[in-house]
Amino acid sequence: MNIIIAGGDGFCGWPTALYLSKQGHDVSIIDNLARRKWDDELHSNSITPIADLSERVEKWKELTGREIRTYEGDLNHYDFLKQVLMTEKPEAFVHFAEQRSAPYSMIDREHAVYTQVNNVVGNLNVLFGIKEIVPDCHLIKLGTMGEYGTPNIPIEEGYLEVEHKGRKDVLPYPKQPGSFYHLSKVHDSHNIMFTCKIWGIRATDLNQGVVYGHETDETKMDPVLSNRLDYDGVFGTALNRFIIQSTIGHDLTVYGKGGQTRGFLNLEDTVRCIEIAAENPADRGEFRVFNQFTEEFSVLDLAAKVQKVAQEEGFGTNIAHLDNPRVELEEHYFHAVNTKLKDLGLEPHLLTDEVIRDILKAVMHHKDRVIEENVLPGVSWK
Amino acid sequence: MNIIIAGGDGFCGWPTALYLSKQGHDVSIIDNLARRKWDDELHSNSITPIADLSERVEKWKELTGREIRTYEGDLNHYDFLKQVLMTEKPEAFVHFAEQRSAPYSMIDREHAVYTQVNNVVGNLNVLFGIKEIVPDCHLIKLGTMGEYGTPNIPIEEGYLEVEHKGRKDVLPYPKQPGSFYHLSKVHDSHNIMFTCKIWGIRATDLNQGVVYGHETDETKMDPVLSNRLDYDGVFGTALNRFIIQSTIGHDLTVYGKGGQTRGFLNLEDTVRCIEIAAENPADRGEFRVFNQFTEEFSVLDLAAKVQKVAQEEGFGTNIAHLDNPRVELEEHYFHAVNTKLKDLGLEPHLLTDEVIRDILKAVMHHKDRVIEENVLPGVSWK
Repeated sequence: MNIIIAGGDGFCGWPTALYLSKQGHDVSIIDNLARRKWDDELHSNSITPIADLSERVEKWKELTGREIRTYEGDLNHYDFLKQVLMTEKPEAFVHFAEQRSAPYSMIDREHAVYTQVNNVVGNLNVLFGIKEIVPDCHLIKLGTMGEYGTPNIPIEEGYLEVEHKGRKDVLPYPKQPGSFYHLSKVHDSHNIMFTCKIWGIRATDLNQGVVYGHETDETKMDPVLSNRLDYDGVFGTALNRFIIQSTIGHDLTVYGKGGQTRGFLNLEDTVRCIEIAAENPADRGEFRVFNQFTEEFSVLDLAAKVQKVAQEEGFGTNIAHLDNPRVELEEHYFHAVNTKLKDLGLEPHLLTDEVIRDILKAVMHHKDRVIEENVLPGVSWK
Repeated sequence: MNIIIAGGDGFCGWPTALYLSKQGHDVSIIDNLARRKWDDELHSNSITPIADLSERVEKWKELTGREIRTYEGDLNHYDFLKQVLMTEKPEAFVHFAEQRSAPYSMIDREHAVYTQVNNVVGNLNVLFGIKEIVPDCHLIKLGTMGEYGTPNIPIEEGYLEVEHKGRKDVLPYPKQPGSFYHLSKVHDSHNIMFTCKIWGIRATDLNQGVVYGHETDETKMDPVLSNRLDYDGVFGTALNRFIIQSTIGHDLTVYGKGGQTRGFLNLEDTVRCIEIAAENPADRGEFRVFNQFTEEFSVLDLAAKVQKVAQEEGFGTNIAHLDNPRVELEEHYFHAVNTKLKDLGLEPHLLTDEVIRDILKAVMHHKDRVIEENVLPGVSWK
């Protein structure tokens, strides 16, 4: 299958591109390399050294004989996107190419506006591009579980059956996103749903949980293929951040009480979920939503899990409760349905002590790359 | 009360500015005059001649002694907006300043992107401006009943009480907007709700129905104060368009079966609703939603009402069913709650034959200004 991975130089996109290439798909990457520029802007870095995109795909070809074509450019430039679609004629378009950090979107007005314009316009361009050039192409779009917020009822997969005043309907699940970034994903979902209805676009919206881990079988083949791993207060996500903190002797930074409960998944499941979506495309006109996570944890649970493994490895790891920089409930109901991907064959990699230990060991010999002042949260919601 | 009317040169904004000024409020207008430029772009016009904004406010001062200050500029230019907020220190900010035509947003990709960026960024700037400069200012934001779409359950005012799997919550009412324009308003609503929560913004989102009529007591005081009246396939809305069609001997252009049912209100109620919202501000942190319409009609009902009055006035008016350029249900359930504004004192001007006759007579002597080729729909959703 010809598959474009937009954002294929990023944390989820790069391992997905390799995995799908290995499975025999004809993969190409679109990326504007913005994620690397945000590192420069924030004076931050990946704890793992990452090679240039051109080196990465050359090494992949050298090791496997398989070619991954790359297109450096921005989805916000429609003429560029159209040209790529006309060249590749993709059957699936995997769209990871958005600004994906909640704190980054909350830095100030400029970053909020940038995040929403970049994400919403890029996604609109993808929708128009599919309509005009490859109308049968399946859009596989990365959403986030954070679109739902923390309602006091179970979270369903995209839709909610409602009975109200004696009448019934199935409606889009109400959204309560918690940052300008999460809002941009909600805007995207509404835009996609509409174009499915009016143009017959086929789309799968993957509401992904928090991803942990950083390597897959493919990225582990050579250091040049290594994936990025973020630990800073802006782009680092909970579990990965805790593990890296433990290796440098930093307290695990739990925001507030730590009762915030979210859905999580292993990066190895991310790449498999994309494959499942691609191999089971949505119908023409169908807007399909999958909740893409495998387990639910509170932030404090996660910190305790990391602390346990770190202590077994000889680290004197403590848990610190910081003032929460975000505006969010620290104790709340959370239960989300996630059966659709499992029904299609996903076999989850669960979060065991071994998984934590593996990540911990993998990052150990890069711990000198950690910039300590980036570990604490620097962006406030207020 | 110091009140800013953003979009105060437009169809709803201008009569609102005059009405609030007459009531003794200290009114200023922000407008980038975009609506007049869209007329140029579309080779279209208001059937009523409209004076320049500077002439309008001069005439108002001459007739009433009351000053309305004007700021020509764009909400998308944050420095400009900040300057106005620092100068005026408004207690209420009435935000009409958006691209408000569904067909305009559906012309092509450029118009879709323009509509969403213009509306979403302008509104984000207003939210940041209020937060930074006038945190106690009450945002009165024009939304649209079209945000809801046509669910098979009654439409509530912004929120829906849900019982699901034995648990309960009150959630944002699910949205199913029907154009890139309507989507932009849904995006706005989500952005506003979020900033109410994190910054304590006080906001009233007015989900307005289709407005008919064009004059108020104030705009009728002098031809220079006259309000615009649109009849074209892009900016003209159902009832007004039908009345003008009848005066030029054109068939009333019902799209499809005409069973599309919507909420409607008289322009005289629009200006009063803004006053009610301003005089009863939302609390700090409250995101309040009012459904701003007074009656529900199907499009075919409206056409029949106009036909009846037009025939009484001697016109041989026919109803034509055109191929529907939109993707929408032509027969559906529709019932929306609209009690909050009435509870606060709104006394609706209902749609009587007299109201239709008055509009018809008012437009009669401008009918030579109608550009006939603009009457038919020229923009398709497909």
